[in-house]
Amino acid sequence: MPPLLNPRLSLSLKPFFLFSQSSFAPRKFQISRQFVSVKSRTFSSLASEQSSDNGGSSVGGGRSGALSPSLVTGEVQRIDVNPPKGTRDFPPEDMRLRNWLFHHFREVSRLFGFEEVDYPVLESEALFIRKAGEEIRDQLYCFEDRGNRRVALRPELTPSLARLVIQKGKSLSLPLKWFAIGQCWRYERMTRGRRREHYQWNMDILGVPEVTAEAELMASIVAFFKRIGITESDVGFKVSSRKVLQEVLRCYSVPENLFGKVCIIIDKMEKIPIDEIKRELNATGLSEEAIEELLQVLSIKSLTKLEEILGGAGEAIADLKQLFSLAEKFGYSEWIQFDASVVRGLAYYTGIVFEGFDRDGKLRAICGGGRYDRLLSTFGGDDVPACGFGFGDAVVIELLKEKGLLPELSLEVDNIVCALDHDLQGVAATVATKLRDKGLSVDLVLENKPLKWVFKRAARIKAQRLILVGNTEWQKGMVVVKVLSSGEQYEIKLDELE
Amino acid sequence: MPPLLNPRLSLSLKPFFLFSQSSFAPRKFQISRQFVSVKSRTFSSLASEQSSDNGGSSVGGGRSGALSPSLVTGEVQRIDVNPPKGTRDFPPEDMRLRNWLFHHFREVSRLFGFEEVDYPVLESEALFIRKAGEEIRDQLYCFEDRGNRRVALRPELTPSLARLVIQKGKSLSLPLKWFAIGQCWRYERMTRGRRREHYQWNMDILGVPEVTAEAELMASIVAFFKRIGITESDVGFKVSSRKVLQEVLRCYSVPENLFGKVCIIIDKMEKIPIDEIKRELNATGLSEEAIEELLQVLSIKSLTKLEEILGGAGEAIADLKQLFSLAEKFGYSEWIQFDASVVRGLAYYTGIVFEGFDRDGKLRAICGGGRYDRLLSTFGGDDVPACGFGFGDAVVIELLKEKGLLPELSLEVDNIVCALDHDLQGVAATVATKLRDKGLSVDLVLENKPLKWVFKRAARIKAQRLILVGNTEWQKGMVVVKVLSSGEQYEIKLDELE
Repeated sequence: MPPLLNPRLSLSLKPFFLFSQSSFAPRKFQISRQFVSVKSRTFSSLASEQSSDNGGSSVGGGRSGALSPSLVTGEVQRIDVNPPKGTRDFPPEDMRLRNWLFHHFREVSRLFGFEEVDYPVLESEALFIRKAGEEIRDQLYCFEDRGNRRVALRPELTPSLARLVIQKGKSLSLPLKWFAIGQCWRYERMTRGRRREHYQWNMDILGVPEVTAEAELMASIVAFFKRIGITESDVGFKVSSRKVLQEVLRCYSVPENLFGKVCIIIDKMEKIPIDEIKRELNATGLSEEAIEELLQVLSIKSLTKLEEILGGAGEAIADLKQLFSLAEKFGYSEWIQFDASVVRGLAYYTGIVFEGFDRDGKLRAICGGGRYDRLLSTFGGDDVPACGFGFGDAVVIELLKEKGLLPELSLEVDNIVCALDHDLQGVAATVATKLRDKGLSVDLVLENKPLKWVFKRAARIKAQRLILVGNTEWQKGMVVVKVLSSGEQYEIKLDELE
Repeated sequence: MPPLLNPRLSLSLKPFFLFSQSSFAPRKFQISRQFVSVKSRTFSSLASEQSSDNGGSSVGGGRSGALSPSLVTGEVQRIDVNPPKGTRDFPPEDMRLRNWLFHHFREVSRLFGFEEVDYPVLESEALFIRKAGEEIRDQLYCFEDRGNRRVALRPELTPSLARLVIQKGKSLSLPLKWFAIGQCWRYERMTRGRRREHYQWNMDILGVPEVTAEAELMASIVAFFKRIGITESDVGFKVSSRKVLQEVLRCYSVPENLFGKVCIIIDKMEKIPIDEIKRELNATGLSEEAIEELLQVLSIKSLTKLEEILGGAGEAIADLKQLFSLAEKFGYSEWIQFDASVVRGLAYYTGIVFEGFDRDGKLRAICGGGRYDRLLSTFGGDDVPACGFGFGDAVVIELLKEKGLLPELSLEVDNIVCALDHDLQGVAATVATKLRDKGLSVDLVLENKPLKWVFKRAARIKAQRLILVGNTEWQKGMVVVKVLSSGEQYEIKLDELE
């Protein structure tokens, strides 16, 4: 890189305190008011100290006269530097990806006219306790709080939605179209690379009994996939209705209150051996015959064949037909297929259920949802027809990796502003303020640094312009602007800087 | 409102199932495949059922053949519809305000070149245990998890930041400029209107030993206030340095490891009687004389007077002078004032400390921060010079209310699309998809509704245009567009709709 200004660079370093204290043991206190040894450093020693592989200063160092660790807290403890098991930190590079993902969740939700909501991450445990044997309940991240209340980190968002809707009651205008992006937790004793928390995008429609609602929800997921570059050759939706099972069970006079439990057992079909499934179904009281019939129906992948078996009169067939017809009008019929084996793992679904899957078959379900018309009354509220989906942040990122579609995201700052002399630090602050007032982002260099360092930093933060405040120019009320993409460089009056 | 199209409105209602089931008791299961009573409703009866005070359908109702509550979960429980004590739901109107606030937090952070990060809301309890007697520790929202680990909902973000920085070590380029917006928790047994959770905006600079960093942080807070309409006549910053206290304590040979504890006691000065403060200071071993001197110094509100007492040689004076000089260059000197009584309630601060306060004196501190050069070594890491601030979401909203500056935020949807005939629902879906593909937001009416209802909804969601899909027009491949602000109305080919 060619030298920028004339390389005077008489960095008038403020005396730089060095205070080496590598021991954590409490030091004897010194009564003297005088401060510890001061060592002024030359420009070159500073530069060599500050250059490192990644172009930044390395961690360490500090300032004289600063309080010793023992003074701050009276103790030193070596902590585990990792986040709790199964949880994540989001350093900038991961946060950019999370923000990118959430931005698309939000944008799609906005395009569909949904309003954002949120609920506490900590809820009463009772909200999530259902007796159907769901995996989600076994993995509840629950505690007793200091007031001896049973609480849980939410495993999902829908029960909180139901709680809020009951609370708001008649003040809400139906239909509600709400979305949320919230962190959900599960406590797995055996974690094989699976995490204990993830973020989930939910969209829910309350107040619409027709499958137009489910069709709209799936349209929004398709819109999301398209935005991030995923096509119908990457991903599909398996769709069924719990009413299919309901109709079969009715034929065999299976008691109504077993329905949820049966669904939960069936949902495990791909995870545990079929004999175990049969044993569990049998244990609920289903006859061998009913189980065989059930499993046969569950293997159906064609709506026509389903209609042959169930007859055309039931709601299951009518709903599914309408849904497939709407999918065509929405333009996503290539994405969806009927699959009777889909029942989903939540006890409260009552009608259409669906899940998004990767066509390569490598990943877990990407998202899932369905109709839950009877959830509110299980909490003691009046029922409202409802459907929704949950879409996690984990599997879709794996999918994007698989497909080479992960975006490249980097910090992008408009300007880096640097004083070439310690006395000009205040002027640099004025320059930064002026640019920020105009809506331009500024990384203000807060210490005197060699130009080499500044250029490295400018490259790292992808700055478009470097603005240098030097003595010679500032005497004329001017600063130096260097456009970093072109190398173009000019002097400009501060007033004219834009 | 004048009739829009010719009011044929032959709403061909899909047979609408009515299924009244007010009892939650398990029903006897019926073997019959046939569905329950069907009652077709006339347009007028539907309209009257659906109109309500707020223009929406009221909660309740549902659909025939849907599963009964008992069938879904096998149980009914009446839950508490409120969120856990001290926590909040965010229904759409509150979420809009939260998003508005967070948007400004993010925008300011971006203008200052900061990168967003986040950490788990659940951390090891050990991360927050310091022995200085902080209020924050007494109020730790802590639990034992199912693996018998002591965990806590984070009360603040800084210890997590320190943990992550130690973990990343040399891979980080200094200075770091990081911001985060995270939910923080405290468990107060006595809650007098104070909540147990709030969101906190943090900005931190690591790697800069000079007070240019503190000056930059305060500049960003000022920029934030200006954006939301708060001026220097509403809000100010009280600024001091813990080195002031340190210098006084050194004069009296107070052991270094008491420093944190003394700061925590002094921080309570405005909350508990001065005699109690003196007793507590005395209990740490401070002499009467030292306490008197300390309290006298703490009452100083002028930097000149402080210099007279402490002498000009110490770092406290030098730092504070530099900070006030920089504040002028940044353009916020009207916002800040020296006040020796400010020490802040966190044990780990070592240098400059500041807090934002409302000039009317009605509210608690709006934000606070300072330098914490020795935090990392208390965790067993290498120290890095550091400073930062926390800015909660609660007090600033109270302030905006006080000043009448709360923004009016409402849902704003570009289009509402409605089929005038049930058979045209699919066409409406096509229209909605077309508009959404162009980046326009659409509230698609998912059921057949009377026009009166549609207009009410359009007004509620502040739709700019109503797009009607009616039989007559659709036979010509056209839809009707009504611009709701002007009343202008026209027919347009679907292909030409933009």
